Amino acid sequence: MITVLSGGVGAARLLRALCHVMAPSELSAIVNVGDDLVLHGLTICPDLDTITYTLAGLNNDELGWGLRGETWRVMSELDALGGESWFRLGDRDLATHLYRSQRLGEGANKTEVTQELCDKAGVQVRLLPVTNDAVSTQFDTALGRLTFQEYFVRHHHEVEVSAVHVVGARDARPTDQVLDALRKASRIVIAPSNPLISIDPILQVRGVRDILEERRDDVVAVSPIIDGRALKGPADRLLEELGHEVSCVGVVDFYKGLVGTWVIDEADAALADTVRERGVRVMVTTTVMALADDADRLARAVLS
Amino acid sequence: MITVLSGGVGAARLLRALCHVMAPSELSAIVNVGDDLVLHGLTICPDLDTITYTLAGLNNDELGWGLRGETWRVMSELDALGGESWFRLGDRDLATHLYRSQRLGEGANKTEVTQELCDKAGVQVRLLPVTNDAVSTQFDTALGRLTFQEYFVRHHHEVEVSAVHVVGARDARPTDQVLDALRKASRIVIAPSNPLISIDPILQVRGVRDILEERRDDVVAVSPIIDGRALKGPADRLLEELGHEVSCVGVVDFYKGLVGTWVIDEADAALADTVRERGVRVMVTTTVMALADDADRLARAVLS
Repeated sequence: MITVLSGGVGAARLLRALCHVMAPSELSAIVNVGDDLVLHGLTICPDLDTITYTLAGLNNDELGWGLRGETWRVMSELDALGGESWFRLGDRDLATHLYRSQRLGEGANKTEVTQELCDKAGVQVRLLPVTNDAVSTQFDTALGRLTFQEYFVRHHHEVEVSAVHVVGARDARPTDQVLDALRKASRIVIAPSNPLISIDPILQVRGVRDILEERRDDVVAVSPIIDGRALKGPADRLLEELGHEVSCVGVVDFYKGLVGTWVIDEADAALADTVRERGVRVMVTTTVMALADDADRLARAVLS
Repeated sequence: MITVLSGGVGAARLLRALCHVMAPSELSAIVNVGDDLVLHGLTICPDLDTITYTLAGLNNDELGWGLRGETWRVMSELDALGGESWFRLGDRDLATHLYRSQRLGEGANKTEVTQELCDKAGVQVRLLPVTNDAVSTQFDTALGRLTFQEYFVRHHHEVEVSAVHVVGARDARPTDQVLDALRKASRIVIAPSNPLISIDPILQVRGVRDILEERRDDVVAVSPIIDGRALKGPADRLLEELGHEVSCVGVVDFYKGLVGTWVIDEADAALADTVRERGVRVMVTTTVMALADDADRLARAVLS
């Protein structure tokens, strides 16, 4: 049993690669819900959906998010009405949000609805929202307090951030399935997702960090920073704005005390000794998952 | 100023005809909200939408409901997910519900959102939900208690009804705009909507019936029953199941004390004297609005 702490796109790619080299049913993903939002009355879970769509082979490679074969009729009508259309919801994607919102309204919890959506999509990996309680990642910025999607999508993560708050995290309870997946996994993997805004909102949920500290020797992390930059998204920028070193070493320090083994990219081979001095094991390999072979090699490294 | 008590399709047609023979801006419609529902997290107001779409010339004549040029991508995906798809929401139509739900979530009330949607659609008639409070028309049936749309759409109004409840009506407050429209109108019109399940849920809202009783002389009603049958929907069937006479006379008796002038169809000319014996004025004309000329003639009769 392998358990992966997961944000969106980077985690989805690692999970997909892991499915190529092990039985998907032996794989659990504990997924960030700090980006979740209610918009138009609909509950939207971007990280859960990105992973589900990717593992089902339905992800839209051209856009880099959402579903393939997507259409935009509803959004174009909503534009015409002058509605809030900055968060683009495709027609296919909307069906997911309608389904989830209806089921939550009927009293199902997010964990149950996620399982139902995975079953429908034929996804065998166990996707586990870290908590069924409300958690909201928010940003102090020059424009005031922003929610995750306001920062990320509406303002294209271009506004300067002075602090990140994971509102509700300390009162949120991890689900029993999450605690189980953390305790029983032979290995816990931290995906190359944004440490500050994808993984930290998982770690801040009561008790999660403690288990990682206890199980540190079994924790493997893949650096999301390669040669001082993030492949995608604002991880590099946020590290700098929040006073961290913008390198794989900065990420290693951010996860201090939680990780036994680091996987860093070949481009950062010169930093391997510096990382090793932090008292962790280091593996150097290709961490870019653009090519399937590279991704599978990374997956095997993570499992080795 | 003319104020029309309105359900869905029948009222929409009468309002459209009235717009041909008077200034739309002088026309107010007090609209039933007992059919409103929350589905998939979205607040849906079928009667308000039917009227808005019809007055904007966007109504789908082939279907008899919804928007023209509609597509069904979201519903077909929701079907694939095994979601609740018995209440068909087209892609264009969904934009209305997303817009409304977002605005309600932001703290706007139904009256305000209705005005915004009318402005966008270029509808000059003032559409007024009878109340901003929650009202839910429900049915005691052989299948147990059903909500309006479960009865009407899911079960195609084919199940026998033993009682109608307008849950919440007696505690609901009519809006100030509604009270104003009832008090200041030179004439109050009861549209040929279903008396039991479209108009009665308006009348049951606190204070509405009282104003109609006071203003009885200025109230004109158009019979929805022609030659013992409803043109559309289950009005005839419900009248029978709930112990009323299935004729325009049955409807006249149902509205006893509220109406000064009745408009009945030529097919019921033989009943004019029976109606007159109830102490009301009677006009006999074509009440079927399938042809624009007939509809305009009816509108002129209502205003005369």
